[in-house]
Amino acid sequence: MKDVAAAAGVSLKTVSRVVNGESNVNDDLRSAVLESIAQLGFRRNASARELRQGRSGTIGLLLEDVADPFYSILSRAVEDVAREHGTMVFAGSSAEDADRERDLALAFCERRVDGLIIVPAGSSHSYLLPEMQAGIPVVFVDRPPGDIEADVILTDNRGGSRRGVEHLLAHGHRRIGFIGDAPEIYTAGERLRGYREALESAGIAFADELVTQAPPSAASTAEALDRLLGGPSPATALLCGNSRTTVSVLRELARRSTRLALVGFDDVELGDLLQPGLTVVAQDPGAMGAAAARLLFQRIAGGSPGPTAAPPQTVTIGTRLIPRGSGELAAP
Amino acid sequence: MKDVAAAAGVSLKTVSRVVNGESNVNDDLRSAVLESIAQLGFRRNASARELRQGRSGTIGLLLEDVADPFYSILSRAVEDVAREHGTMVFAGSSAEDADRERDLALAFCERRVDGLIIVPAGSSHSYLLPEMQAGIPVVFVDRPPGDIEADVILTDNRGGSRRGVEHLLAHGHRRIGFIGDAPEIYTAGERLRGYREALESAGIAFADELVTQAPPSAASTAEALDRLLGGPSPATALLCGNSRTTVSVLRELARRSTRLALVGFDDVELGDLLQPGLTVVAQDPGAMGAAAARLLFQRIAGGSPGPTAAPPQTVTIGTRLIPRGSGELAAP
Repeated sequence: MKDVAAAAGVSLKTVSRVVNGESNVNDDLRSAVLESIAQLGFRRNASARELRQGRSGTIGLLLEDVADPFYSILSRAVEDVAREHGTMVFAGSSAEDADRERDLALAFCERRVDGLIIVPAGSSHSYLLPEMQAGIPVVFVDRPPGDIEADVILTDNRGGSRRGVEHLLAHGHRRIGFIGDAPEIYTAGERLRGYREALESAGIAFADELVTQAPPSAASTAEALDRLLGGPSPATALLCGNSRTTVSVLRELARRSTRLALVGFDDVELGDLLQPGLTVVAQDPGAMGAAAARLLFQRIAGGSPGPTAAPPQTVTIGTRLIPRGSGELAAP
Repeated sequence: MKDVAAAAGVSLKTVSRVVNGESNVNDDLRSAVLESIAQLGFRRNASARELRQGRSGTIGLLLEDVADPFYSILSRAVEDVAREHGTMVFAGSSAEDADRERDLALAFCERRVDGLIIVPAGSSHSYLLPEMQAGIPVVFVDRPPGDIEADVILTDNRGGSRRGVEHLLAHGHRRIGFIGDAPEIYTAGERLRGYREALESAGIAFADELVTQAPPSAASTAEALDRLLGGPSPATALLCGNSRTTVSVLRELARRSTRLALVGFDDVELGDLLQPGLTVVAQDPGAMGAAAARLLFQRIAGGSPGPTAAPPQTVTIGTRLIPRGSGELAAP
């Protein structure tokens, strides 16, 4: 600012007035200041201001993988809410790695974000307690934190899964398979629970050979389908626990020219254009991201934590069953 | 740090040694310091450090829409390269709005990013010159900047489009339509140019009634197909200029139970599972993001700009034609 004042031949106070948009500045002086700002490339220094005001106007968003459509839609929704609050978003992907989650979360904190939104990869989050006590609110999304209490936005995984199985039961199926992600992933466990509950309510015994829990891959899917379709009493229907598994199952079924009644948990683009169309239990990642961001900004506005702060909230967002054909194939 | 030292009953120097990971500290003192750090929630202050070192360890990434799969894959690739450089990524979506692009880019600069990667929405970028002169390198991706010279990473739009049309010509088509995005979008213009060049090389006259250029929407697609299929000499094949239009065309064709040889520019998930499979000219958004980030970090490492700096580069990344059925339907 001193350089700008010197170049424009005005006082430091005049530069400050122009920069802060005050109206009590002579037009010629204002022009001179603006011109020397343009020449010198003067930029307001957010870091210096931040140190004075104690707020950085940034939040951190930690996803499993921003390239996954579910998380990219969630991410855009967070960004839109942040924008309403004049706040920038740091985004990072944990790649389902607890160490990487921790490194990223702490790196965001070190950059003094005003708050964090985290899709947890790890199962322990006590490493965040010092940050939370220092006044950085944290909202978890998609999965709850491991060993701390905090705000969390979830899908109704169990209810959605139950609804998917009930839909298949209603179309006459009794041998219904389930292929889900690794059991240590919260959403995978909940969705399996919903599957069990629906079978139980219908008086159908749980059959180990109809259930596979593994990280989605072409190989694990092929193996799971071998088991489901190979035995003396093969499955006639399948609930896929996540969209990556659904895509993998669709590819494998196409390769085998096999049909199977199918409901996917989570929607996929073009699901309506397949033959038959893909029936899904749809989540709403946009609503989840927006809810997480709104809750975070409420916490940021609420000031420092402590006994007077509002207790942690769990927000559960419902699912929608979208019938398109694959889930309505009748049992043989 | 003073509070930590007081709580631990040690000198400020000891706290500093522990925080900076130096080994010449007595184990008991180290434990005392770590304990009081945990109690006080002491955090290293990245802002203060940044003001000393002049680099923030952050970059800004400005996309059209992070929820679009093309940009979310590009985004993840940028993040992975940034991670190798210990750098965090600010991400933002311009939503194809020039003012929003400018606001976000300048907000990133105000937060003192070390560099910017921009998918430009607007056609004028001289607003970035003061930032670039102040030492913030900028790499454009997907589309070139408007009125400044800068590094840019592009897809070979014209070549890819030409190749798609040549593929349709090779299958006997002579009436080939083109539906692309609004003509003011750089990639849309280049793809139309490739379409024209391929027809010209084959000695086929350009026909206005076979070309539509509009932002993708269900309504504009339906109208375009009416024109393509309605006249006395209807189109038998179609090149779709972008994936949103392709999806929209596929929906409309399914609704009409019409078949048309089809090549889409840009791949879509599940394109292989449609019947027929979707033939595409695939871009590589991961390679584009990685190339943009690598070039940016080269520029950041290279120091301040000026007459000695390396001149701006244009990197053009090739496309791949993936035949899956829809583009191989023979002309009637």
